[in-house]
Amino acid sequence: MAEPAEIVKGCMVIKANGYAVWELLQRELDTRFKATGHQNMYFPLLIPESFLHKEAEHVEGFSPELAVVTLAGGKPLDDPYVIRPTSETIIGHFFAKWITSWRDLPFMVNQWANVIRWELRTRMFLRTTEFLWQEGHTAHSNHDEAVAEVRQMLDVYAEVAEDVMAMPVIKGVKTQAEKFAGALQSYSIEAMMQNGFALQAGTSHDLGQNFGKAFGVQFQNRAGQLDYVWQTSWGASTRLIGGLIMSHSDDKGLVLPPKLAPIKAVIIPIYRKDGERARVLEAAHRIASEVGARVDDREDQTPGAKFFHWERRGVPVVLEFGPRDLASGSVVLKPRATGDRHSVAVTDAAEKLHELLGEMQNRMFVAAKQRMKANTVLANSIGEVESILHDVTAERGGGKFVLAHVKDDPRCDLRVKAFKATIRCIPLLDEYDGPGKCIITGEPVERRAVIAKAY
Amino acid sequence: MAEPAEIVKGCMVIKANGYAVWELLQRELDTRFKATGHQNMYFPLLIPESFLHKEAEHVEGFSPELAVVTLAGGKPLDDPYVIRPTSETIIGHFFAKWITSWRDLPFMVNQWANVIRWELRTRMFLRTTEFLWQEGHTAHSNHDEAVAEVRQMLDVYAEVAEDVMAMPVIKGVKTQAEKFAGALQSYSIEAMMQNGFALQAGTSHDLGQNFGKAFGVQFQNRAGQLDYVWQTSWGASTRLIGGLIMSHSDDKGLVLPPKLAPIKAVIIPIYRKDGERARVLEAAHRIASEVGARVDDREDQTPGAKFFHWERRGVPVVLEFGPRDLASGSVVLKPRATGDRHSVAVTDAAEKLHELLGEMQNRMFVAAKQRMKANTVLANSIGEVESILHDVTAERGGGKFVLAHVKDDPRCDLRVKAFKATIRCIPLLDEYDGPGKCIITGEPVERRAVIAKAY
Repeated sequence: MAEPAEIVKGCMVIKANGYAVWELLQRELDTRFKATGHQNMYFPLLIPESFLHKEAEHVEGFSPELAVVTLAGGKPLDDPYVIRPTSETIIGHFFAKWITSWRDLPFMVNQWANVIRWELRTRMFLRTTEFLWQEGHTAHSNHDEAVAEVRQMLDVYAEVAEDVMAMPVIKGVKTQAEKFAGALQSYSIEAMMQNGFALQAGTSHDLGQNFGKAFGVQFQNRAGQLDYVWQTSWGASTRLIGGLIMSHSDDKGLVLPPKLAPIKAVIIPIYRKDGERARVLEAAHRIASEVGARVDDREDQTPGAKFFHWERRGVPVVLEFGPRDLASGSVVLKPRATGDRHSVAVTDAAEKLHELLGEMQNRMFVAAKQRMKANTVLANSIGEVESILHDVTAERGGGKFVLAHVKDDPRCDLRVKAFKATIRCIPLLDEYDGPGKCIITGEPVERRAVIAKAY
Repeated sequence: MAEPAEIVKGCMVIKANGYAVWELLQRELDTRFKATGHQNMYFPLLIPESFLHKEAEHVEGFSPELAVVTLAGGKPLDDPYVIRPTSETIIGHFFAKWITSWRDLPFMVNQWANVIRWELRTRMFLRTTEFLWQEGHTAHSNHDEAVAEVRQMLDVYAEVAEDVMAMPVIKGVKTQAEKFAGALQSYSIEAMMQNGFALQAGTSHDLGQNFGKAFGVQFQNRAGQLDYVWQTSWGASTRLIGGLIMSHSDDKGLVLPPKLAPIKAVIIPIYRKDGERARVLEAAHRIASEVGARVDDREDQTPGAKFFHWERRGVPVVLEFGPRDLASGSVVLKPRATGDRHSVAVTDAAEKLHELLGEMQNRMFVAAKQRMKANTVLANSIGEVESILHDVTAERGGGKFVLAHVKDDPRCDLRVKAFKATIRCIPLLDEYDGPGKCIITGEPVERRAVIAKAY
């Protein structure tokens, strides 16, 4: 699906199959963004470096990762530009021009764009120098409405992850140490990959009035007074494709949930003799158009090679159709996830395919959910957490979501980092036990947090 | 629709209405690209500067316009990157990895992306430092097939321009002086704006084996010999939005062809008394859902202000609905392009709206076509060409497409540039007269070329 483009450090090329999955994901997200009242806009790729300095935490967070344009049009620039690592600053600049009254609020924008973050260690799809994403940016007249927006968009991400990607997630709050640079509070959805590693799959930020104050985004409220807007931002990226691959793939290759499969079904015609060929092909094309499948009628490939080809690409259902099927008026359907064979009458093939695709979508989610549950454990001391995660690496696997009482305090984040894990989030739902004492500071905390090794 | 973002020289912000038009245009183009066998991929934004030097004409053409990243991750880069001005070079690099045999050909890719060209003079939407576009890149086993692809994609652009944008174009060949840097031959579609200026609205390039040789894209042909691929590239950009605005707008604002109108119809409810309000609004919403329109039920705006609002944004049809319409069971439809009023029974409104939208789409094209025809003139000497275009500026208008016999020779391009015009293209169709003698060199040429002032 992707190819490391080592000519540009940590950049990826997204090849056709991967990009087609991204297009389907984009449509699922975009439809939901529009249904919740957001409009797409586009803002400049280049941001004056000075903009980033207007919000102190923001510049501190992003400075180490910036790519800077210092030459343009053959001349050195007096004021360098950075390539956007995210667009809060430049959008803040325009919000200040566009928003003057409570009548302009809420102002709800989304942008589909590429961004660059110069990461030290990169990993294909999961942590790349350049990635494609969407970033939502909204401005509100009060904090309650902004928080409701932040939570709503977190719900949208969770819905797409679970219902479309078949990837179960935990919704939660990031610790102060792990929040977005410049936010009051960050929320995330955390998914578990097959090796038990966590993947932050979408984030939604309550920016408070931080950017409003930094960029002077003021509005006249209903009482006629000037106030700063309350902002949010939220993003999901091509990292989701990585999450999809690492949630569902097996040794044979990709397994795509039907809702994100660019090609849902392929028919492989099977014939030996020249006399069979025309009849089998003709019937295969007829079945294909009835059930909405593609026929792999390449002449220079064996049926086995074709099967291997589509299996590796994660096509949800492969149909086999040969002379015996032709004689009996039947066709064989093989779902990718289970590999079992269903021989059905040609007249029932469309319905059976529809049923198998629905089943596969559900099964993939249930299987991933069970895997996450089976690998989620409670721990009641920091030693216990450390020993559970001790031998875990991306390659060896064995990762867990360790649920422990731990305080939202940078010292606790630091302690956990000592064994290369992180506090992923404090789940919003209190489904893992009630209050307890922090396993590091001993202070009382409301609920357990998720500690895990993560991408 | 757009806002000059002068904080970044010549960059634009594409606001919601403009971006929604771009999304519709993207869909029209993308559907046609896929139907002609192309697949979308994504390649890195940053290109090693050395790549551009591999094709001599290419680097010469683009060097003056490059934005260069010299710092990243807090450190100076040993090998600077340029932000892609176009992607032939980086895609050539990957073609060389992916293509080995005639079986891999044709290889047909499209990319939706942003690019940066540091232009000296910029103009909103028409010539911007950053713009959004698509760039198609294909590789073929022989020149004939490559040329057929170049012509096919030119036809796709012309079809979208004329049938979707209602913007008539002339398809033609660029002169050698005006071709894409690195191409054997470039083709373009040229549209005429309301001021008579030409706008190059899409280009399609026959790259020959130039990039194949520069990047070592070799394949084994059917005879078992190594050969270089024949490549094409073709692009259209957000400049099309500029073309749309300047083709159809009037003093009242934007006029959008229905096929590209994000909102096709808006109902403005009209009521005076509180007693009327509920009944009018209720009926307006019912009509809206029947005809597929939006109701402008804002309380703090007068009907007049609402009408002005939607007229300015180019909504194709505005419906007025008040107490008298309620009583008579009718509704008034006002098409944006003509401004006339059609009072019809509510039960006929959906059909009438459909009819008016179809009519408006056709009329806009016919009107633009007539305007182009009326402003296309023949000239038989260079003095005549110069005097026709003498007083023409973007602001004053009066521009013409001047058809004259002129040789494809850089000396002729230079002579025409002396009065700030260009040879736009040599039309593919011989509809403007036959062969003749070049008005500059006196040499025989096959047909007249289009000379015009251009954006």
